[in-house]
Amino acid sequence: MNIAIQDVYPDDFAHCFGCGRHNPNGHQLKSRVEGDAVVASFTPQPHHISVPGFTYGGLLASLVDCHAMATAAAAAEAAAGRRIGEGPAPRYVTASLKVEYLKPTPLGVELVIRGQAIERSEKKAIVAVTVEAAGTLTVRGEVVAVRMPKSMQQSPAE
Amino acid sequence: MNIAIQDVYPDDFAHCFGCGRHNPNGHQLKSRVEGDAVVASFTPQPHHISVPGFTYGGLLASLVDCHAMATAAAAAEAAAGRRIGEGPAPRYVTASLKVEYLKPTPLGVELVIRGQAIERSEKKAIVAVTVEAAGTLTVRGEVVAVRMPKSMQQSPAE
Repeated sequence: MNIAIQDVYPDDFAHCFGCGRHNPNGHQLKSRVEGDAVVASFTPQPHHISVPGFTYGGLLASLVDCHAMATAAAAAEAAAGRRIGEGPAPRYVTASLKVEYLKPTPLGVELVIRGQAIERSEKKAIVAVTVEAAGTLTVRGEVVAVRMPKSMQQSPAE
Repeated sequence: MNIAIQDVYPDDFAHCFGCGRHNPNGHQLKSRVEGDAVVASFTPQPHHISVPGFTYGGLLASLVDCHAMATAAAAAEAAAGRRIGEGPAPRYVTASLKVEYLKPTPLGVELVIRGQAIERSEKKAIVAVTVEAAGTLTVRGEVVAVRMPKSMQQSPAE
């Protein structure tokens, strides 16, 4: 079975609104390694609308964001010689996010999100992401992911 | 009274998940002209979490996105010599979105979002946006907004 990267984030850091398995109100994006890429699919809900017929750009940015963090984690695991599921996946956070809306993304169809780490060092990765709707490329993203700093691991009171 | 820009979007285009007044499941961001800037405030909910204690970056990107569209609309109305509320506000859509996460944004405090159109033509605006949490700048965005094309105004079936 092809385990989702978000399903092996450490329990303490699996609450993300975009992709945390412990967030019942969130989008619960699931990203999986497939060959050289990391792939996810997601079907926006009717309320994820921008204008009638089209998907909200902020949701698309969110999918790009979370998918890029998973892609960075997968690249780190691959570099360490581990497969997804052999241990907890490392948690990355977003330093910067760039999203180009090439075409309006229709609402009501399954989106396919693909990511690839185009640069990687110990603490950082640059990830290219695409979103396709019914086979048409509609969104292109580039995301800088950094390993979650210790300052974010102190579980301040919510 | 200082009317929110999103409250004067045309009824047919006021469903946006980020800021549409007709979207009961959405964030309902409200952006208002204040002097030279456009300002909104928003307090993320507990489920808008990234990792414990911090706000989800995809939500922040969403706030930047919608606020930038409102800022572009306000700039267009100002250029036309109209005040917000004197007519329907023009509807912009996002061509590209760039968000820098300068610092982690704490969860549970009110965020203040400010926008300013730094370039503007008849069909396009470039908008600079900042997000502050408890007085600290945490996010900086730059958004290219374009007037909603006719191809998005045909209300395809949802």
